[in-house]
Amino acid sequence: MREPLLQRAAPGVLDIEPYTPGMPIEELQRRLGIGNAIKLASNENPLGMSPKVRAALAAALESTNLALYPDGSGHRLKRKLAAMHDIAPECITLGNGSNDILEFLARTYAGPGRAVMFSAYAFAVYPLAAQAQSAESVVVPARPADDSMPYGHDMDAFARMLRARPDVALVFIANPNNPTGTWLEPTAIEHFLEQVPPDVIVALDEAYYDYQDPALRPDTRRWLDRFPNLLVARTFSKVYGLAGLRIGYALSHPTVADLLNRVRQPFNNNSLALLAAEVALDDQDFVRASVVLNARERARLTRALTERGLRVLPSQANFVAVDFGRDARPIHQGLLERGVIVRPMGSYGLPTFLRVTVGTEAENDRFLQALDEALTA
Amino acid sequence: MREPLLQRAAPGVLDIEPYTPGMPIEELQRRLGIGNAIKLASNENPLGMSPKVRAALAAALESTNLALYPDGSGHRLKRKLAAMHDIAPECITLGNGSNDILEFLARTYAGPGRAVMFSAYAFAVYPLAAQAQSAESVVVPARPADDSMPYGHDMDAFARMLRARPDVALVFIANPNNPTGTWLEPTAIEHFLEQVPPDVIVALDEAYYDYQDPALRPDTRRWLDRFPNLLVARTFSKVYGLAGLRIGYALSHPTVADLLNRVRQPFNNNSLALLAAEVALDDQDFVRASVVLNARERARLTRALTERGLRVLPSQANFVAVDFGRDARPIHQGLLERGVIVRPMGSYGLPTFLRVTVGTEAENDRFLQALDEALTA
Repeated sequence: MREPLLQRAAPGVLDIEPYTPGMPIEELQRRLGIGNAIKLASNENPLGMSPKVRAALAAALESTNLALYPDGSGHRLKRKLAAMHDIAPECITLGNGSNDILEFLARTYAGPGRAVMFSAYAFAVYPLAAQAQSAESVVVPARPADDSMPYGHDMDAFARMLRARPDVALVFIANPNNPTGTWLEPTAIEHFLEQVPPDVIVALDEAYYDYQDPALRPDTRRWLDRFPNLLVARTFSKVYGLAGLRIGYALSHPTVADLLNRVRQPFNNNSLALLAAEVALDDQDFVRASVVLNARERARLTRALTERGLRVLPSQANFVAVDFGRDARPIHQGLLERGVIVRPMGSYGLPTFLRVTVGTEAENDRFLQALDEALTA
Repeated sequence: MREPLLQRAAPGVLDIEPYTPGMPIEELQRRLGIGNAIKLASNENPLGMSPKVRAALAAALESTNLALYPDGSGHRLKRKLAAMHDIAPECITLGNGSNDILEFLARTYAGPGRAVMFSAYAFAVYPLAAQAQSAESVVVPARPADDSMPYGHDMDAFARMLRARPDVALVFIANPNNPTGTWLEPTAIEHFLEQVPPDVIVALDEAYYDYQDPALRPDTRRWLDRFPNLLVARTFSKVYGLAGLRIGYALSHPTVADLLNRVRQPFNNNSLALLAAEVALDDQDFVRASVVLNARERARLTRALTERGLRVLPSQANFVAVDFGRDARPIHQGLLERGVIVRPMGSYGLPTFLRVTVGTEAENDRFLQALDEALTA
């Protein structure tokens, strides 16, 4: 009886290989019986979330009727984001995580004959979103392994590919990029945007924006005025520490926002996530503390790994990609057995790498110790 | 600059008229400055949610790290649902509300040349989900206004239409149906299922299942074993009172569940919703109290409206559709001005109707009083 159930399914859906998420701590406990595991596998904020958000959520459990549907328009959060970015609320789309935004884009602009372009070694959700639409993925070769920005996006190659492939309707750029941590010079993105035809939508995925050194952060808000076909995606899952609640957003031309809001489910954002995001925006001290911790520990982790003779890709994110120069799976397994969950990168075509989230000082110490044990075991 | 941004958009998306949700209480306050409004517009549970769920959420704010991504597999909730329904966890798909499930279905099975069939006066999300896929909507005429089940699904007409339209790949049946409240004899559904080709997927939307009299509830779990092309969708937004948190699920053949899980976002369900649903399943006393209140007040409300010379459609849900025999918009407006939000049905093609959620005794009294005032104003 299996066959008939597949007969009318979209061809792209049949070909999807589902996303492999970072292993939850619970699952490691179920599998290996390890009780005090730490997870450095999903680029979450090791400081958790702002205590002010936690207090607001606790108060909301008393004062908010969660049996009521959320405000589907996200009125209050949008007003706050609009003020923060100096943009009209009509330019904002709210997503159940920024993953939701990426899917709205694919569902609106991708399909058979309307291809999706992105870099090699870029975020795994781009090809998934394309495939669910039965759209072709056009993969732009990354910068070479011996480049100053190894495995990073190559914007000249993007421009060349776009000229060669007029069927591309949607372009994803991740800056900084996950899983490599690499980043782009603002002028490289700007120069590319100047070459993109006005009917091709460019989505700039800035999930890790806040972790960049201020000097490296492009002023993408300003670009929105110049390039109506640009969309900027942001998330509350990283520096704001709200991954468990699911909330992200996009800034774009109101025409694009209008289309995305048509494919958006009427109540895609839950009430507590909407509230948490609002309150989180007000606690920029928490954001700064998270960024400072990350910069310091990222530098320390990079140094410690380099001292061990390992190659660490340059990173402006809250994780580092480490090259072990050999199949990294046994090392991944050795870390798991010592209660440290990191992310294998074989599915990204980088089987000698592991991606390690920058944790607290104690977590990073524990990772380094487990690594030393795993490497000598 | 507007035109180029529309050029590559999916034709279906361009035609979408977004869903109009029930007005949030906040919005009425913003618009009319009314401070103590009640909302009987979105079929929410007037008892809120189980106090046990609230307690579990409060505890989770202390013990759960919401900065971590949710368990994307929903392991614990699925295990609980599997035990409750005596079904394998592989048959379950979790959604960000059951709306998510309806979209997974459309994205998997609908598209150009793969039409979606549903009844006239059925849930507004069915045509939206079809249109976002640029799929044709095949609307089956409902039972006539003077039928014993006025405006209800006509399963004989479904079967005839399906024979006439071999391009239909996906069928939605709502039982009980929103916005009419009407329901189907189990044998009528069963007889239809026996006539459906095995490559056509039938989604039975049971959002209001628990509100039905036990004698009228079909044993849809048993049908799943007989009809591999059947999917049953359920929600925690209604009797469980968790609309604000967004969680629903589907039971289906594992092959269908596998496909739906491929288009599902890796982290579509937020951590608090997963937890709340688990705990909610354990408090069946709360469910029973909600059902008892609803049955009693639905009968009282129906009686009160009938005594006022109004026609109330037969309902097995937590709302009633009331026919005013004239444009209901002024009455809707009159109720709004008195702080009572109900749902106009013009967008459903029933402009003389209002849909009123069954509230608490006090809420229903307030509605009736506001209605009397609005009708004589």
